[in-house]
Amino acid sequence: MTGSTVAPFTADDYRARMERAARAAADAGLAGLLVAPGPDLVWLTGYAPTAITERLTLLVIAAGMDPVLVVPTLEAPDAAKAPGAPALSLRDWTDGKDPYAATAALLDAAGHFGVSDNAWAMHLLGLQKALPGSSYASLTEALPMLRAVKDAAELELLAAAGAAADATYEEIRKVPFAGRRESDVARDLADLLRRFGHAQVDFTIVASGPNGANPHHEVGDRVIERGDMVVLDFGGLRNGYGSDTSRTVHVGEPTEEERRVHDIVREAQEAGFRAVRPGVACQEVDRAARAVIADAGYGEYFIHRTGHGIGVTTHEPPYMIEGEEQPLVPGMCFSVEPGIYLPGRFGMRIEDIVTVTEDGGRRLNDTTRELVIVD
Amino acid sequence: MTGSTVAPFTADDYRARMERAARAAADAGLAGLLVAPGPDLVWLTGYAPTAITERLTLLVIAAGMDPVLVVPTLEAPDAAKAPGAPALSLRDWTDGKDPYAATAALLDAAGHFGVSDNAWAMHLLGLQKALPGSSYASLTEALPMLRAVKDAAELELLAAAGAAADATYEEIRKVPFAGRRESDVARDLADLLRRFGHAQVDFTIVASGPNGANPHHEVGDRVIERGDMVVLDFGGLRNGYGSDTSRTVHVGEPTEEERRVHDIVREAQEAGFRAVRPGVACQEVDRAARAVIADAGYGEYFIHRTGHGIGVTTHEPPYMIEGEEQPLVPGMCFSVEPGIYLPGRFGMRIEDIVTVTEDGGRRLNDTTRELVIVD
Repeated sequence: MTGSTVAPFTADDYRARMERAARAAADAGLAGLLVAPGPDLVWLTGYAPTAITERLTLLVIAAGMDPVLVVPTLEAPDAAKAPGAPALSLRDWTDGKDPYAATAALLDAAGHFGVSDNAWAMHLLGLQKALPGSSYASLTEALPMLRAVKDAAELELLAAAGAAADATYEEIRKVPFAGRRESDVARDLADLLRRFGHAQVDFTIVASGPNGANPHHEVGDRVIERGDMVVLDFGGLRNGYGSDTSRTVHVGEPTEEERRVHDIVREAQEAGFRAVRPGVACQEVDRAARAVIADAGYGEYFIHRTGHGIGVTTHEPPYMIEGEEQPLVPGMCFSVEPGIYLPGRFGMRIEDIVTVTEDGGRRLNDTTRELVIVD
Repeated sequence: MTGSTVAPFTADDYRARMERAARAAADAGLAGLLVAPGPDLVWLTGYAPTAITERLTLLVIAAGMDPVLVVPTLEAPDAAKAPGAPALSLRDWTDGKDPYAATAALLDAAGHFGVSDNAWAMHLLGLQKALPGSSYASLTEALPMLRAVKDAAELELLAAAGAAADATYEEIRKVPFAGRRESDVARDLADLLRRFGHAQVDFTIVASGPNGANPHHEVGDRVIERGDMVVLDFGGLRNGYGSDTSRTVHVGEPTEEERRVHDIVREAQEAGFRAVRPGVACQEVDRAARAVIADAGYGEYFIHRTGHGIGVTTHEPPYMIEGEEQPLVPGMCFSVEPGIYLPGRFGMRIEDIVTVTEDGGRRLNDTTRELVIVD
């Protein structure tokens, strides 16, 4: 283990975040927040249970009370050791007791609550049954920007994760590609991410030749050949904050067409980046990148949104997608990652994490975006 | 990688499971089943998405139609390769479209549906909004025994996983304990599980001395000392099916009291095992084990239920707990794992996976349950 999946913040940091969340909830007309294990709970308390199970663990943040973490008795000793524990009360429940009744007793019976996106449906149903007059919205719907604006300490951690991903790209360019399996290169990527301080590797996409045309192809047994384009997309958590970068490399000399398509993706990525500044709607970043690709005649081959937020996860709001009118705010961090995918032939994608500054954007990945030739 | 987290079944196997699930749903008065990525989806289709994200992936099993897997377009190529894919239709949706409307169009607008326990609350809320007249129950509530009764092929895979866990215990007894950290022994356990064929290690609890009194203590930096009791509890997935076994060892000669408490736990585990036979309620297994511990005066120190089911996960229904009146059925598989935890001093637990046979129970773990002395 070369680090932790939870960042090194203090109880005061977590207290401040919980207070900020409580204010945001009140401003949004919510009676409270119900926070399940996962990124929301990590961000608010630093607590990550060893396993997420059918036993209810739920942080309740509501007006007029200090935050309460409802936990199974078995989990209470671990929860008590969480860095944010001094800023909340624990309420434990024992196997056989009804955790929904215990939670409901803390809540306004007719309240409208925000609940973590990834809370288990089973637990939401338990609460809905215990409090038939209550109603719920997912945190992404109710408070989409709760974790979206990063403070200075968070930005530093994201920048360090980005630098580690960049170092990984610099090294992976030196390994042999031709004649090795995608899975071999993926293992190299994972080893490098860990060597550069990642405690958790979330994905190591190596999509060669026609596999590159499937943006979600992770990795396979295909042997990489001379003449292949290879999409590399990798990231994970370093000191509790995420990295995520993509570059496309070519094994040996590319064709004229491959160079041309790569130039289009690079220009699209540049256009998306240049669109970033405070006050601009998220969808404008998508539009800027998409316009370059559409104008070049490849619009139908850019089959995903342009980006997603990053923080204590590698995938979170805000989303750079048509229809997302949320304005950018300094401190937001997200990917800008247009691609072109030609079915049965090849694909490419270029991705940087970008943070919104006072007057534009700053990239947290800065390796070359030119088409790099590998062996 | 020494195996897969998904078992090697055919499209016909998955078709049969989906048909069985559809019949069980109809028998339970459900209009259909909504199955999220995770163990239910793996069991029904063999499909495990690379990442579980905010994008909706949902298998719909409803009367009068073939099963439909709603998937993000990005994920469709992977889903199409799942072993169960020939037994269902894919319906993909693209970023920016409303996946809840697309799903709702497949459903009875006033139906009562079973939904995977671990489906995201965000997705359940999306469906509730799209179909205000519908209602939902978690699969554990609506069809708790859907995956509980294992067929012959599944039993064989569970037995093989159990044998691999047993081989791990035989080997771990030989490693040095005194003077090494819990985390060192945990790493040995993980290496051994992998060596014996596990593709996924779910937990490697090494709880020494006073740490043993916390049943959920996973592992720490504590240096194990001569005179410590050490609880070992480890398992994971081998060819897609789970292992989970616990033994308590002692570093050097135990005291009289330690031997006596260990004997009580061993007798309790034996009593729980002997209670297993078709028709007996789950809670009777818990009562049988608990009675031994209570009669010996340690009732208040047995602070968890006696067991949980196992299959494509290491933690699922049925639960051996007071109040669970579900009768045992041949083919069910679950843990029997009583323990005694003396705060600040030490703890112990003995755990085997047991399957219900026509006339009793059969253990899938069979290493010695005597107190083993290690170095």
